[in-house]
Amino acid sequence: MAFDIIRTARAVLNVTDLEASRRFYVDALGLIETESDDSTIYLRGLEEHNHHSLVLKKADTASVEVMSYKVQSEDDLEVLSDFFNSKGLRTTWVEEGRQKAIGRTLRVQDISGLPLEFFAKMDTVDRLLQQYHLYKGARIQRIDHFNCMVPDVQKAYDFYTESLGFVCSEYTAAENEQVWAAWLHRKPSVHDVAFMSGDGPRLHHVGFWLSDQLSLIHTCDVLASLGYGPSIERGPGRHGLSNAFFLYLRDPDGHRIELYNGDYLTSDPDFKPIKWDLNDPQRGTFWGHEAPDSWFHEASTVLDVNTGEAISTDQPKLKQRKPMFVI
Amino acid sequence: MAFDIIRTARAVLNVTDLEASRRFYVDALGLIETESDDSTIYLRGLEEHNHHSLVLKKADTASVEVMSYKVQSEDDLEVLSDFFNSKGLRTTWVEEGRQKAIGRTLRVQDISGLPLEFFAKMDTVDRLLQQYHLYKGARIQRIDHFNCMVPDVQKAYDFYTESLGFVCSEYTAAENEQVWAAWLHRKPSVHDVAFMSGDGPRLHHVGFWLSDQLSLIHTCDVLASLGYGPSIERGPGRHGLSNAFFLYLRDPDGHRIELYNGDYLTSDPDFKPIKWDLNDPQRGTFWGHEAPDSWFHEASTVLDVNTGEAISTDQPKLKQRKPMFVI
Amino acid sequence: MAFDIIRTARAVLNVTDLEASRRFYVDALGLIETESDDSTIYLRGLEEHNHHSLVLKKADTASVEVMSYKVQSEDDLEVLSDFFNSKGLRTTWVEEGRQKAIGRTLRVQDISGLPLEFFAKMDTVDRLLQQYHLYKGARIQRIDHFNCMVPDVQKAYDFYTESLGFVCSEYTAAENEQVWAAWLHRKPSVHDVAFMSGDGPRLHHVGFWLSDQLSLIHTCDVLASLGYGPSIERGPGRHGLSNAFFLYLRDPDGHRIELYNGDYLTSDPDFKPIKWDLNDPQRGTFWGHEAPDSWFHEASTVLDVNTGEAISTDQPKLKQRKPMFVI
Amino acid sequence: MAFDIIRTARAVLNVTDLEASRRFYVDALGLIETESDDSTIYLRGLEEHNHHSLVLKKADTASVEVMSYKVQSEDDLEVLSDFFNSKGLRTTWVEEGRQKAIGRTLRVQDISGLPLEFFAKMDTVDRLLQQYHLYKGARIQRIDHFNCMVPDVQKAYDFYTESLGFVCSEYTAAENEQVWAAWLHRKPSVHDVAFMSGDGPRLHHVGFWLSDQLSLIHTCDVLASLGYGPSIERGPGRHGLSNAFFLYLRDPDGHRIELYNGDYLTSDPDFKPIKWDLNDPQRGTFWGHEAPDSWFHEASTVLDVNTGEAISTDQPKLKQRKPMFVI
Repeated sequence: MAFDIIRTARAVLNVTDLEASRRFYVDALGLIETESDDSTIYLRGLEEHNHHSLVLKKADTASVEVMSYKVQSEDDLEVLSDFFNSKGLRTTWVEEGRQKAIGRTLRVQDISGLPLEFFAKMDTVDRLLQQYHLYKGARIQRIDHFNCMVPDVQKAYDFYTESLGFVCSEYTAAENEQVWAAWLHRKPSVHDVAFMSGDGPRLHHVGFWLSDQLSLIHTCDVLASLGYGPSIERGPGRHGLSNAFFLYLRDPDGHRIELYNGDYLTSDPDFKPIKWDLNDPQRGTFWGHEAPDSWFHEASTVLDVNTGEAISTDQPKLKQRKPMFVI
Repeated sequence: MAFDIIRTARAVLNVTDLEASRRFYVDALGLIETESDDSTIYLRGLEEHNHHSLVLKKADTASVEVMSYKVQSEDDLEVLSDFFNSKGLRTTWVEEGRQKAIGRTLRVQDISGLPLEFFAKMDTVDRLLQQYHLYKGARIQRIDHFNCMVPDVQKAYDFYTESLGFVCSEYTAAENEQVWAAWLHRKPSVHDVAFMSGDGPRLHHVGFWLSDQLSLIHTCDVLASLGYGPSIERGPGRHGLSNAFFLYLRDPDGHRIELYNGDYLTSDPDFKPIKWDLNDPQRGTFWGHEAPDSWFHEASTVLDVNTGEAISTDQPKLKQRKPMFVI
Repeated sequence: MAFDIIRTARAVLNVTDLEASRRFYVDALGLIETESDDSTIYLRGLEEHNHHSLVLKKADTASVEVMSYKVQSEDDLEVLSDFFNSKGLRTTWVEEGRQKAIGRTLRVQDISGLPLEFFAKMDTVDRLLQQYHLYKGARIQRIDHFNCMVPDVQKAYDFYTESLGFVCSEYTAAENEQVWAAWLHRKPSVHDVAFMSGDGPRLHHVGFWLSDQLSLIHTCDVLASLGYGPSIERGPGRHGLSNAFFLYLRDPDGHRIELYNGDYLTSDPDFKPIKWDLNDPQRGTFWGHEAPDSWFHEASTVLDVNTGEAISTDQPKLKQRKPMFVI
Repeated sequence: MAFDIIRTARAVLNVTDLEASRRFYVDALGLIETESDDSTIYLRGLEEHNHHSLVLKKADTASVEVMSYKVQSEDDLEVLSDFFNSKGLRTTWVEEGRQKAIGRTLRVQDISGLPLEFFAKMDTVDRLLQQYHLYKGARIQRIDHFNCMVPDVQKAYDFYTESLGFVCSEYTAAENEQVWAAWLHRKPSVHDVAFMSGDGPRLHHVGFWLSDQLSLIHTCDVLASLGYGPSIERGPGRHGLSNAFFLYLRDPDGHRIELYNGDYLTSDPDFKPIKWDLNDPQRGTFWGHEAPDSWFHEASTVLDVNTGEAISTDQPKLKQRKPMFVI
């Protein structure tokens, strides 16, 4: 590639009640509120030196405005724009100054219809990593990845690995070796983005990285004591795939958040992607627990980067299914 | 009382395959094997200075031979014997030398039909608390409690609190303030024994105490990597009642083991038993997770201390039921 | 004994700057402030259902007004009073209403000159054990023990074990088998009080129990980020004796606080006190670290329960010394 | 650069007693022994899919044969060779087959005289990340970094950042803004290599990454219970610089090993190197503990990649000194 996508950088989520969102993300989970106004809250994790990694915008309906990746330089944006246009994917620019704290961004609907944004510049702020007295709730360190449901994972996989420079760390194979799900990275972790077969395009969850397992356990306790028990959708548990120690939460609008600890280094060219059989019960949950149906069927609506309208979804090409457990 | 029951001391479980049990309890969970022969394995936790807290005996059928409590002195045994006989509960003595490493014991079927044993003397062995290189698996520290299903919890509660000197720390109240479940202690922890309404008398589980939450998480990982995923029945989770961070396992014969961290000091006379409503969803699982049906219906058969025959069970007087969750 | 001392219950410390103390104990360590006024702050841990376990009183000079034990009943106070008087230890009563939230108390200078207080009643308050959103700093669960420097440990040991009903869990023996230090308990933990040979009588530290090791590590981080690095005197480390995972802090007045995790059950009459040789390098610090001189020489002045004057100290009968390390 | 150094890959250490080394690294610390023979032991961490990251070779004298970095491709080796030769740094090739499990390697004495090795190929083996029953001791996940003492840190800094493509995450500035120490990375972590001002060139330590803090605490307990207390040189503690939760150990030959948890993502071009003042007491130890003199003065001798002779050392250009603490 003539461009360098560094990492998953931020999600822009539309929410219906800013105060309810603040109570969940700031008061309960402990994300740092960098800045906010009547219509928007900008949040970041404890180690993040950029202005924000999560934007919550007041809206009539919950949805995903855009998922953003950071690139190495401004020049990369031009190259990316040319590339997308050459593929018939219509891009749009959001000029610097139009969005708080961030430079010029390039937006595009990707090959699956997901709303992406690329940028090279974001304001820097004080990193709070060593301000330990400010740690609370989940002690979220940083944004880690997006997980998206798309109807044709193979198509997304090919596009991201062949054209955008992503590398596969692990994947789930269905019958006939078709890719049912794939974990792809730019930074040398398990993933910056994962694709799962399902009604899509939709955002399944935004993953945030925690530095330890006990913060995740404590999050359950804090959520429960604040009355957010019903927000705990799945976990704590261990994924076989990715080895993540995970907790899935639903925010007040139903957006799904993963708290995530584990991960491993994927820097080496000789690291072979790990293949999991779709029916391996340890793939989804290493310990054998079954995931709730909601986790397989519910996800966030994504918007058109040009019109702001909801993107309609298609049925998955592979029969979507929950793994069978014979326990 | 003119006797002093100190604490939950040991369980004697009949198992059908000693080698399968050893793989589970010793190789996977890391209990210390003090001694064993062709028909019996004696196990203890890392801080225990007594010879064992769990006895596994080779048998044709899985069952519970007896649940043992340690008393302050030999004299207490005589007083207890007189007491039980005065209540029409027929006792039997097992003389010293008949059981390995333990003094004379008094056995009795309690008011619910549970097989109890009392003793004052057990051989002491090296405590391995500071032999950290021997820690493995769950790093179990010590036996903590029994949990029993009985058809009439109120009757058991009255007998243990009024006649045996147990104190209630927490309880679950059904309609009309009837006791649906109760947690009773002699040592100043949450419990030495708990009773739950259900088909009984049966042993629901033996609880072992861990010193930290991460040992419990690691146990899940170890069990899964050894193929014991299906042995994980419930958890990890937090009980509202007792505040336990818990994991429920089923051993190769289906006996249920609880790994348990949490607890609090219950030494004070002004500590008021904590009342939980049967339908409070946070009672069973503070975080809101539903327990599997097996946890509510399956338990271990107990034996007659005189005949060695299985004790027949009765339906609970209170309608047994799983709490309803409206999440 | 015809009385029953339940446990270590509270310390009353004189401090010179209430606001400085509040910043340390409440803002940094996270103790719960039950109540306070211009001259006093009442603090408790997360699981404590009694009004307080630590009282900070505004004074011109830092000192220890009294160390309190809870007894089973009001009657025990009368018996204790008679006992102390029979031993020539002059007692004084503080009538109910004279101290906030606590019933009538019996005060006495013990055989080493330490100011003790006994009480049976204290107001109960909401237990915050499951209010996890209020957890902060060290997440202190409860008061655990006192550690005192006295010139004649053998005398204190004899008095507490023979007359007050304390039981020894572990001790340090100097040459000629003389007791150099002893850990004594009423509740079945390692200790409610420990005595070390040294200039005394003085209070060496008040120990608070934490539920896990990571809270103790996090405390170091929080203290350091708030500028309290110099308050960390010793640790984190592991004591060989008691197996405690420990952290010693000095409050703004120099009073020493131990944060403490570990412990084990000492309920059994057949538990033999563990003997440590004074020169065993693993006794003090299992990992081999040397303790700072201040830890061996500095301690808090204690007051006369009748006059409120500082108690003068004597040199230890056994040569006080820091263990020698040959590493 | 026309080459791409991926990461710190392996250290080759000469040791005088293979069995003593095995007891330390395998039995106590729990590193995985991939393979060994009479003269060599090959070790790796739990997540490593390459054959080894630490080689212990039987020798008469303890020393460092070489520190190895993995590069993206074989071609990179050629480019690197040309580069070093152009700088007057004499290289040597070790052909494939001459060293077990590794392809052709390029060796060179770097600008400070440190023995480096570069390679693109190493045999892959089973990754044991999810073989949790094999976890023991320190549960080391992977090699992380080298830390080297050199007399002229500024020179090393310039060479690595300007010519080898390393990026600075944090550094210590002495008077006149001279670089006293620097942390440099290729993988987006805090470092692959750090340089400290001191007698050199010498290897100060090899850093290994742990996934959690409790594994590090448990390592102390395990080492102490096995009699390795004296091997614990410094820690557990928190570095201000790098935010590492650290433990420094000395192996049986005195080679220093760091166990390390913490770290943060350094992928972004707008991440500004963090500057620490040499006399900031929180730089070295965030909590304020003083490091032992040995940590500042002792380090491992390194060898000439051509002759195998020990490299002589020079005094540091900046006055080497331990930070002053005014506590």
